[in-house]
Amino acid sequence: MTHFKYPEVIQETIKALTVKDSYKSVCHTHFFEYPMPSGNVIGEIVNLTREILFPGYFGDSPVRSESIHYYIGVNTERLFELLNRQILAGLCFQCSMSDPEKLKENKLKAFEITKDFIALLPELRRLLTTDVEAAYLGDPAAKSRGEVIFCYPAIRAISSYRIAHALVKLSVPIIPRMISEMAHSETGIDIHPKAQIDEYFTIDHGTGVVIGATSIIGKNVKLFQGVTLGAKSFPLDDNGNPIKGIPRHPIVEDDVVIYSQATILGRITVGKGSVIGGNVWVTNDVKPGSKLVQFKPKDSLYTEGGGI
Amino acid sequence: MTHFKYPEVIQETIKALTVKDSYKSVCHTHFFEYPMPSGNVIGEIVNLTREILFPGYFGDSPVRSESIHYYIGVNTERLFELLNRQILAGLCFQCSMSDPEKLKENKLKAFEITKDFIALLPELRRLLTTDVEAAYLGDPAAKSRGEVIFCYPAIRAISSYRIAHALVKLSVPIIPRMISEMAHSETGIDIHPKAQIDEYFTIDHGTGVVIGATSIIGKNVKLFQGVTLGAKSFPLDDNGNPIKGIPRHPIVEDDVVIYSQATILGRITVGKGSVIGGNVWVTNDVKPGSKLVQFKPKDSLYTEGGGI
Amino acid sequence: MTHFKYPEVIQETIKALTVKDSYKSVCHTHFFEYPMPSGNVIGEIVNLTREILFPGYFGDSPVRSESIHYYIGVNTERLFELLNRQILAGLCFQCSMSDPEKLKENKLKAFEITKDFIALLPELRRLLTTDVEAAYLGDPAAKSRGEVIFCYPAIRAISSYRIAHALVKLSVPIIPRMISEMAHSETGIDIHPKAQIDEYFTIDHGTGVVIGATSIIGKNVKLFQGVTLGAKSFPLDDNGNPIKGIPRHPIVEDDVVIYSQATILGRITVGKGSVIGGNVWVTNDVKPGSKLVQFKPKDSLYTEGGGI
Amino acid sequence: MTHFKYPEVIQETIKALTVKDSYKSVCHTHFFEYPMPSGNVIGEIVNLTREILFPGYFGDSPVRSESIHYYIGVNTERLFELLNRQILAGLCFQCSMSDPEKLKENKLKAFEITKDFIALLPELRRLLTTDVEAAYLGDPAAKSRGEVIFCYPAIRAISSYRIAHALVKLSVPIIPRMISEMAHSETGIDIHPKAQIDEYFTIDHGTGVVIGATSIIGKNVKLFQGVTLGAKSFPLDDNGNPIKGIPRHPIVEDDVVIYSQATILGRITVGKGSVIGGNVWVTNDVKPGSKLVQFKPKDSLYTEGGGI
Amino acid sequence: MTHFKYPEVIQETIKALTVKDSYKSVCHTHFFEYPMPSGNVIGEIVNLTREILFPGYFGDSPVRSESIHYYIGVNTERLFELLNRQILAGLCFQCSMSDPEKLKENKLKAFEITKDFIALLPELRRLLTTDVEAAYLGDPAAKSRGEVIFCYPAIRAISSYRIAHALVKLSVPIIPRMISEMAHSETGIDIHPKAQIDEYFTIDHGTGVVIGATSIIGKNVKLFQGVTLGAKSFPLDDNGNPIKGIPRHPIVEDDVVIYSQATILGRITVGKGSVIGGNVWVTNDVKPGSKLVQFKPKDSLYTEGGGI
Amino acid sequence: MTHFKYPEVIQETIKALTVKDSYKSVCHTHFFEYPMPSGNVIGEIVNLTREILFPGYFGDSPVRSESIHYYIGVNTERLFELLNRQILAGLCFQCSMSDPEKLKENKLKAFEITKDFIALLPELRRLLTTDVEAAYLGDPAAKSRGEVIFCYPAIRAISSYRIAHALVKLSVPIIPRMISEMAHSETGIDIHPKAQIDEYFTIDHGTGVVIGATSIIGKNVKLFQGVTLGAKSFPLDDNGNPIKGIPRHPIVEDDVVIYSQATILGRITVGKGSVIGGNVWVTNDVKPGSKLVQFKPKDSLYTEGGGI
Repeated sequence: MTHFKYPEVIQETIKALTVKDSYKSVCHTHFFEYPMPSGNVIGEIVNLTREILFPGYFGDSPVRSESIHYYIGVNTERLFELLNRQILAGLCFQCSMSDPEKLKENKLKAFEITKDFIALLPELRRLLTTDVEAAYLGDPAAKSRGEVIFCYPAIRAISSYRIAHALVKLSVPIIPRMISEMAHSETGIDIHPKAQIDEYFTIDHGTGVVIGATSIIGKNVKLFQGVTLGAKSFPLDDNGNPIKGIPRHPIVEDDVVIYSQATILGRITVGKGSVIGGNVWVTNDVKPGSKLVQFKPKDSLYTEGGGI
Repeated sequence: MTHFKYPEVIQETIKALTVKDSYKSVCHTHFFEYPMPSGNVIGEIVNLTREILFPGYFGDSPVRSESIHYYIGVNTERLFELLNRQILAGLCFQCSMSDPEKLKENKLKAFEITKDFIALLPELRRLLTTDVEAAYLGDPAAKSRGEVIFCYPAIRAISSYRIAHALVKLSVPIIPRMISEMAHSETGIDIHPKAQIDEYFTIDHGTGVVIGATSIIGKNVKLFQGVTLGAKSFPLDDNGNPIKGIPRHPIVEDDVVIYSQATILGRITVGKGSVIGGNVWVTNDVKPGSKLVQFKPKDSLYTEGGGI
Repeated sequence: MTHFKYPEVIQETIKALTVKDSYKSVCHTHFFEYPMPSGNVIGEIVNLTREILFPGYFGDSPVRSESIHYYIGVNTERLFELLNRQILAGLCFQCSMSDPEKLKENKLKAFEITKDFIALLPELRRLLTTDVEAAYLGDPAAKSRGEVIFCYPAIRAISSYRIAHALVKLSVPIIPRMISEMAHSETGIDIHPKAQIDEYFTIDHGTGVVIGATSIIGKNVKLFQGVTLGAKSFPLDDNGNPIKGIPRHPIVEDDVVIYSQATILGRITVGKGSVIGGNVWVTNDVKPGSKLVQFKPKDSLYTEGGGI
Repeated sequence: MTHFKYPEVIQETIKALTVKDSYKSVCHTHFFEYPMPSGNVIGEIVNLTREILFPGYFGDSPVRSESIHYYIGVNTERLFELLNRQILAGLCFQCSMSDPEKLKENKLKAFEITKDFIALLPELRRLLTTDVEAAYLGDPAAKSRGEVIFCYPAIRAISSYRIAHALVKLSVPIIPRMISEMAHSETGIDIHPKAQIDEYFTIDHGTGVVIGATSIIGKNVKLFQGVTLGAKSFPLDDNGNPIKGIPRHPIVEDDVVIYSQATILGRITVGKGSVIGGNVWVTNDVKPGSKLVQFKPKDSLYTEGGGI
Repeated sequence: MTHFKYPEVIQETIKALTVKDSYKSVCHTHFFEYPMPSGNVIGEIVNLTREILFPGYFGDSPVRSESIHYYIGVNTERLFELLNRQILAGLCFQCSMSDPEKLKENKLKAFEITKDFIALLPELRRLLTTDVEAAYLGDPAAKSRGEVIFCYPAIRAISSYRIAHALVKLSVPIIPRMISEMAHSETGIDIHPKAQIDEYFTIDHGTGVVIGATSIIGKNVKLFQGVTLGAKSFPLDDNGNPIKGIPRHPIVEDDVVIYSQATILGRITVGKGSVIGGNVWVTNDVKPGSKLVQFKPKDSLYTEGGGI
Repeated sequence: MTHFKYPEVIQETIKALTVKDSYKSVCHTHFFEYPMPSGNVIGEIVNLTREILFPGYFGDSPVRSESIHYYIGVNTERLFELLNRQILAGLCFQCSMSDPEKLKENKLKAFEITKDFIALLPELRRLLTTDVEAAYLGDPAAKSRGEVIFCYPAIRAISSYRIAHALVKLSVPIIPRMISEMAHSETGIDIHPKAQIDEYFTIDHGTGVVIGATSIIGKNVKLFQGVTLGAKSFPLDDNGNPIKGIPRHPIVEDDVVIYSQATILGRITVGKGSVIGGNVWVTNDVKPGSKLVQFKPKDSLYTEGGGI
């Protein structure tokens, strides 16, 4: 009985996997002192920011008038330190060679960006306060603003979006995408960090919502689950690859409501105050004040075993 | 080279963030001895309940006839203790001032509710056994009941729902919502804990399913992914806010099947034994035994670069 | 004041929950030395495999030409050990009695399967490299292949699928399902591990995608969020249960694109090069080169308080 | 081959171990809402106190003039909360029955004691500053006060002692003993929390030092490793048990140095400025300014294999 | 500036460290399925045993008459499982080749030994109850038996010794030594697991106590800190190595007290009821009822700068 | 009932503790990018080094001829990275101002030192192999070299010493002291990292051993527990502080054995081949080949209640 000898296949496979040709297009080369972005730390950064913006709901920051500044102080300093290093990691992520000058330059840049982000925190809180208000007022099941802040996936997704969007505006690479994918994974809501979304924004239920990179959303807009603000097919360049950076997602003006599973495609405009019904598919401009709904489904015959 | 001095912007931002006006509507004030609900502990409570109800599948509770009672015993005592404190935290969540009398009253209430919940565990197991049966029999890909219990997101979401619903009936605030949002995040299935769902309920795949707060679902109902049982627009009160508590979601009678992405809206009734096809949008009553399907899509022209 | 005595209801409930009839159909009996599959370890296995296949992106495996073989070596050995035990656990999961001979046989089998899986790693890397290529080229928002590997939920879901599918082909029970449900929970993308998917496969956004067990997908296929490749109703056997194992999901040929929320049902064929528009519902064969889109939604009247 | 059946001896042993007579004198009965002292939390309390008293050396509390008050603030609030609960646990530890009135009384008492302890923190820092000074000046190997604070087991043991002694003076049961045993385990230095030790106290190396409960130590005393300040035999009461609470350990006056392994026993006085040499055994008063040393060892014959 | 290139010395050192000659006498070869003993698991085993023997003091096992059997049951089953695997690891530790037959034999042996150990638990509790009694009655500072069980390093060290000694008697290799070294590290008390110690044994303070492998200690013996029961020089074999297994440590009869820092060497007998004073060095038999003390130290002159 | 109001004493105490005068001599000021040494990471560094030097005993590094280089490779690279940062932290520990030039210089220095340390690993393994040999041959209770490596506190303490000493020779501040204090805490053996110790060194039992900073120990020396190689009183400088750096501890020549609790003080020489008996106190040179023992203790009268 000799079955459990060390299997040769392990050695052979390791050999095959370390042939350079087999990994060169799917590997990431590390350079000394160039940190790698860390999903765990970025998760902590988002939580810490939420803890600062909504004092008393998350983490260990009890709010009392006597002591709230201690918690805001400690959390803001810690945020500064963690974020500074992740921004540096983001700046290094696409560097293709180890270069002390480049590293030094990136360190200065990361430091400046981090300061700029910290300065944006009060405005982030103001914006999110409008989103909480919109979610609370718009949902008959909501008992209190506290419940909305503490439990609603929409607020989780929108706060991650607003953080990621602030970083995008400061030209931070990769990190905003990581933040939005983490929120996507937790909530099923996929908001591209480049999208522009104004105040009093809310999403109900939310699973399946997709908001593309060049979308522009006005004030006081409400989306339901499964809504897509997407692109139609893309113009290709001479090599047959999609041309990047062209506006290709919808503009949704103020006071629009879009019901569940609706799909809005292309650089069209949904006019102010429109209501888009569930499960529709829209690829042309919608005039302000419009109401769009799907055709009523027909009744059909249904034969047993024969499927729908 | 003076770049890395302590940045003044940190102090200024902390100052701005601790101005009372900036946080007063989005903060939660803590009072001594008023515990805060904890997402981690509530996750543990749900896992522990699953471990008790489905012995041998989760946690460290081996099932052997000689010793099963030890594990059920230890887990039930632990569940009592954890749940008691979280229910108290839920009761305190919306208190607006520190009041020893109120705290004492809440403690008694939490203790009574916890006892009542514990007493419901056998009925919860009975109901979930019917759901497992429905999932197993209804899915040609299911190999065994064990696979259904151990792997299926539907059972994960439905067990969380049944736990949360039991707590809703015992008037526990906030905690049921937290439980349902955790299941929502894990499975993409969003069942409001106030919904009423009878036995032998199942969901296939499940991502994107939404079941609203006043929905009523009969026995032996099956939903596929993306199904919405939602509300139409809400009546508003004199202040322009939605009136809370009005029945506004569908009634789905026994033996109904609803296929993927269908949207059923408003306080309508889907009659016994009906089959609703995928991607339809229903806002009127459906007679018992109906079969509804979407119009067949047309073929269209497709010009290169011009979108679909 | 005698409220906080040890509540008798705990003892009564424990008694009720340990009555054999109450748990026998929802419990899993443990036998000595028969390990139970562990979700945590399986998560670690998937991460380790990703770390081996995409060196330098995940875990702690810096890639430098001098040292990459150390990391691949350590990770592959560790993968062997963890996987071997989980495969054994999978083989034991449905055993109904403790039998030393059976256990010995399963150990040999697990060992052989693990070796076969390890030998497949280079092919898995080759396949996933094509998927990364497809995602990168097909998305105008993608900045680099690195961003695709590091952040895109599609790559996360597809790599989990390809690992799970390799295990399915080696006849490993339960473990592939666990892997696919974990990816489903993280990404909202539900690919059955039995589905057959060829190279250069990609999914955009992805939440809500469902790919059924008997689906067959060709080369260079792209799906958007919410697409279902599902089954229609199932033929039943004499006991009224679904007949298992019959092909019942679509065949999607090479170069097909399917837009968001489309539902393709039954063992139909979507011909080479077809484009399926969003939100459509397809239950019949689609000829090669077809373009299908939904009817354009009508404008409707909207009366206040009266719903959409 | 039937070896791995569930062994009956497990059931029999469990039965034997749950016979009340077998455990009644070595068990601790729990009552609802009476917390049990927790070694882990007490460890955290000691660390937190050290972090407050020596800012910047322990934990995550960077010292900068701009922000030190945030860290002191957060840590002091957290210390209050943790300590309050452990003091309550200590007060409950020896309660022999569940009594709501007693619990309420203990809660008030714990709250008052915790406040009193917090108020002592500045004096604790002052005292420990003198101990750091004594250790730094007295050790030719010490490079800086920072090294003494950060690395020296003496400072670790003395700071635990000073915390524990403050709690003893506030009549907290059990917790001080737990603190001193934790320091004992870490450093090999065993200082009874009831001992009275004045400022500028230091210990070199420290392993094996024992300072008994009724010892009184003056200012500027230095001990080396292995020194015992112990009791001689104890007077017994009528039942043959030691009479508790009688002064039975030495008084060591100001400016005394005691070298390694010396044993000082009984309620004797070692006069001001005395020096006690290593390995001596002292049971009588020592006059101020004395120098005591051991006899010089003789040379002896040593025969091979015959022992020393 | 090229300082941070990957340093070649790393590759050279790795090469040097993997030359077989450099590691062959200080490495441990692993064989598939031969587990390695784990310090962490052994620590858990000791804690679990303490939790079973002293119910209510350690871990999460509240003692109430209604439910104590659940906790004892779960803990005993868990102890069985963990211990079984560590005993197997101990049996494999010194195997020098991978041999399936040997492995099978070791598994059977480990299983039998584990059963025998479990059956000894009630006797272990009885013995430890006498030790607790001795510690409580003998220490004027002890407030209650609970304090002794919960806090005293002597009880920690003696309970580890009694567990380790039980495993020694069952011929388990390496594991007993690991247990005693863990207690040694925590308490500074070094009791060889082969020593034989009768009931009502206690140690005060304890740091520095050493009890050698062939020591025999009677009933009701008390040791203070720093006491050594050691060996004199050892007879050597023809190769100049110590002959193993010869009785070489003291026999201490009933009712003996040995004060701090005393050193008792060689296979001598300290007769019943003797008292050995602190800091003495004993290498001959001591008659029953003797009292031994050190010479009184002389006063000496002390010149500044000239040493003691 | 107003007892549980937020206590004002917290605010007052925080205020007192943040007065600069109260903390200035016991605080450590942080500068941006100057890392602080971390006890946890240094513990990991020591474990990793042990794992590299004694392959197969610690951590997760199975030794098989096929794969040992993977583990040595990964561990050595990781050691490089962790150590580099801790050495930098050590160099920064005593910097008194933030200075970019100083930081840059320290980075280069840390990088060079780390490379030098890595290059010393093979010699460290050679030395430790001689220590293992000495411990194995010298202890009749040792079953195998494996047991010595895996369990003996002496090997733990000596390996930490040899690592720390190598860092001292490379002029690393603070880190060596941290390493030796960690070993001191675990084993009760306190070896100053500056001491010079030649090959084949061993310690039996070990608790209480102290080896001072300027000690010099030859080949093949054995110490027992409680041995002190210490300093007598120190010459003082003009300010009354001890003069640092003067040789003040013993020289112990080859082949010396020192039995338990012996105290050797001052810059004396214990000649080659000497044997020092237990509990003696030596302050003068000892000629080669000497045997020193304590006087035999006298028998004394013992009166009840009157002490020994």
